[in-house]
Amino acid sequence: MIKETIQREIIQAVETVKQTNPMAGSITNTVTINFVANAQLAVGGSAAMVYLPDEGEFIVKAGGALYINVGTLLPIYEQTLPHVAKVLHETGKPWVLDPVAVGIGSMRTCLLKRFKEYKPDVIRGNASEIIALAGLWELDGGTENSKVRGVDSTESVMAARTAAVSLAKWTGGAVAVSGKTDLITDGNVVALSYGGSHFMTKITGAGCSLGGVVAVYATAASPFIAALTGTAVYNLAGARAEKKAEGPGSFQVHFLDELNKASAEDIAKNPFEIEEV
Amino acid sequence: MIKETIQREIIQAVETVKQTNPMAGSITNTVTINFVANAQLAVGGSAAMVYLPDEGEFIVKAGGALYINVGTLLPIYEQTLPHVAKVLHETGKPWVLDPVAVGIGSMRTCLLKRFKEYKPDVIRGNASEIIALAGLWELDGGTENSKVRGVDSTESVMAARTAAVSLAKWTGGAVAVSGKTDLITDGNVVALSYGGSHFMTKITGAGCSLGGVVAVYATAASPFIAALTGTAVYNLAGARAEKKAEGPGSFQVHFLDELNKASAEDIAKNPFEIEEV
Amino acid sequence: MIKETIQREIIQAVETVKQTNPMAGSITNTVTINFVANAQLAVGGSAAMVYLPDEGEFIVKAGGALYINVGTLLPIYEQTLPHVAKVLHETGKPWVLDPVAVGIGSMRTCLLKRFKEYKPDVIRGNASEIIALAGLWELDGGTENSKVRGVDSTESVMAARTAAVSLAKWTGGAVAVSGKTDLITDGNVVALSYGGSHFMTKITGAGCSLGGVVAVYATAASPFIAALTGTAVYNLAGARAEKKAEGPGSFQVHFLDELNKASAEDIAKNPFEIEEV
Repeated sequence: MIKETIQREIIQAVETVKQTNPMAGSITNTVTINFVANAQLAVGGSAAMVYLPDEGEFIVKAGGALYINVGTLLPIYEQTLPHVAKVLHETGKPWVLDPVAVGIGSMRTCLLKRFKEYKPDVIRGNASEIIALAGLWELDGGTENSKVRGVDSTESVMAARTAAVSLAKWTGGAVAVSGKTDLITDGNVVALSYGGSHFMTKITGAGCSLGGVVAVYATAASPFIAALTGTAVYNLAGARAEKKAEGPGSFQVHFLDELNKASAEDIAKNPFEIEEV
Repeated sequence: MIKETIQREIIQAVETVKQTNPMAGSITNTVTINFVANAQLAVGGSAAMVYLPDEGEFIVKAGGALYINVGTLLPIYEQTLPHVAKVLHETGKPWVLDPVAVGIGSMRTCLLKRFKEYKPDVIRGNASEIIALAGLWELDGGTENSKVRGVDSTESVMAARTAAVSLAKWTGGAVAVSGKTDLITDGNVVALSYGGSHFMTKITGAGCSLGGVVAVYATAASPFIAALTGTAVYNLAGARAEKKAEGPGSFQVHFLDELNKASAEDIAKNPFEIEEV
Repeated sequence: MIKETIQREIIQAVETVKQTNPMAGSITNTVTINFVANAQLAVGGSAAMVYLPDEGEFIVKAGGALYINVGTLLPIYEQTLPHVAKVLHETGKPWVLDPVAVGIGSMRTCLLKRFKEYKPDVIRGNASEIIALAGLWELDGGTENSKVRGVDSTESVMAARTAAVSLAKWTGGAVAVSGKTDLITDGNVVALSYGGSHFMTKITGAGCSLGGVVAVYATAASPFIAALTGTAVYNLAGARAEKKAEGPGSFQVHFLDELNKASAEDIAKNPFEIEEV
């Protein structure tokens, strides 16, 4: 893949979403659920959040992609998530997994283990989560002992490179590792995406809402392009919002504005590099 | 009803709320629950959200009205919602129903069917939801097959006029259909309310929070006046906020400010028309 | 305690938090959960929210303190909260209790009664809640019949002074009563903290998020200093945000910015008085 081809695909993904207002449903945590929906709407998508098994199945079939974020598990998730993941696998609808806080609690571990067979099209997480998920799935680059501290990463993005590549090879999709520089891979190439803002670690939900936005783009592009496009618009909007912000409160407001204003061309031009694996 | 009478009643509703800070509890979805509460507070009301059956009964009795929004159903709602709707019916406390995403999932369908007998004082939804609810309740203007796409409408407000009128005739209350122009009816007259902003479809919760605000006004006015007052302040604040906003993030901030600043006179003067059914 | 000693301890608490980014997990309500997390991050802490029993135990052990807010109870809380409170008591990790809406519903009453034996290090509430909790725990200054109206207080802060002191004496920790002037006590001295804004009653979650912020400071200071530091930064940021705000929407944005910008020295200098009990 050469950069120009990738940039053309990014432009197409962004414009298709703005023109068609595709729905990407979510089963996501209660902390950032509002921010996920608003970010999805800001880039031109449509949102729908549910908890129950049959409702999850409905929105998989009604929408173009699904986002599953295991941030705040509720008892019903034990039924909903395996059912919905199975439906996703059977229908072939693209889905994005955010393995938030992998390693905390038995239900989370059990669910994330089962997801291995359902091969999420995009996995998005911080470095610690990506390394821990690869460990849980017994893939290269993973470690048995998660260094996840609550929802925060204790590892650098580059330390998760091998884990990200092996996860992407396993799923046949893409993996996005969020950090100071973001890494996106489809198992064959690795993209490094630049930009963003230090305020993104001072608000809750920058990562969660990126997962939701990647699901929106996954309705209109390959997993790798969807992950890279979502990451690029976050890096662009983050950098622009930081210039106008006086703190994390105003950053969040400007960030949603900039997500909405970002043009396809500007998103495609946001700095990134491509390397062979 | 002549316009001047209606405007006087709007002024009275707004001023009573600002002076008495009435509580309108909610059982509502997790996506926009914060926005519902903040909108209720911004217009001068007080908010209280619960999930459990006996807590629902308590806030019905402690408050002046209740808001039920079925956006994100949890398993406990199977017990909570029928119990609370029954208590509402027995106590005669006004309540507002938002039949979000009617047609998705078996619990939602079952609950919304049962609500027919408990006659919500105000029903607020988008055009597709109003048509689908009338269909579910086997009333004129409804259709059996919901065209609801997740939480979005695929129908125009005017297409829902017959359904809205027949729902209002059944309940003896009012129905508000939200869209570019909003339609409010008590089964005898139809009001069309103008204003708002294109940003209202680019943020999540404009409709949900309107339901909560209508519940606040329902503590101080008839269902029709409450629905029209809530819709009018939303159209006014939306139009004012749009002028100051640079995107959906800042729109939301200005919108809450304008909800809070809107005077009773300005709300009453927000453009509307009245027609006989 | 003389004022200068207290101010030095406040400065140390604020600076330790800014330097070490301590995690304070939460089990809190769905209405303001996002605001709690963002406020915790704004002052320099880290947040993690959970619902399940074993996840609650995990974040107690992984974090420096825990925040329990009973605002919107879910069925699983019947298992989660007593288990987590027991773990907190056994491990000696500091925890903050917000007895939101004490008196509403049987599960809430039952859980809050059981918390008596687990002695929360800080109890934060409005005057009505503090009086009602003291009543529930059969301590001086409490009344049997809660005057809590939903989540609002119907009592003045000074009316809760005896109840606050007796609660603090029982737990051996601190109690913070929020209102126009805020009262913080460790059972021996009473601090009165000044500042804040009338907008804090026009947004949802000022109290809830203060509880979360006090939990962050409790990782680095005594219960009394943590409660006073949290209250002081809220009063300071509230007063500063009010000057820039045009309504409750923009107030909230500026408030998060000011929480983040407040220096340790300015927080320590925020006006307060100390009295012997």
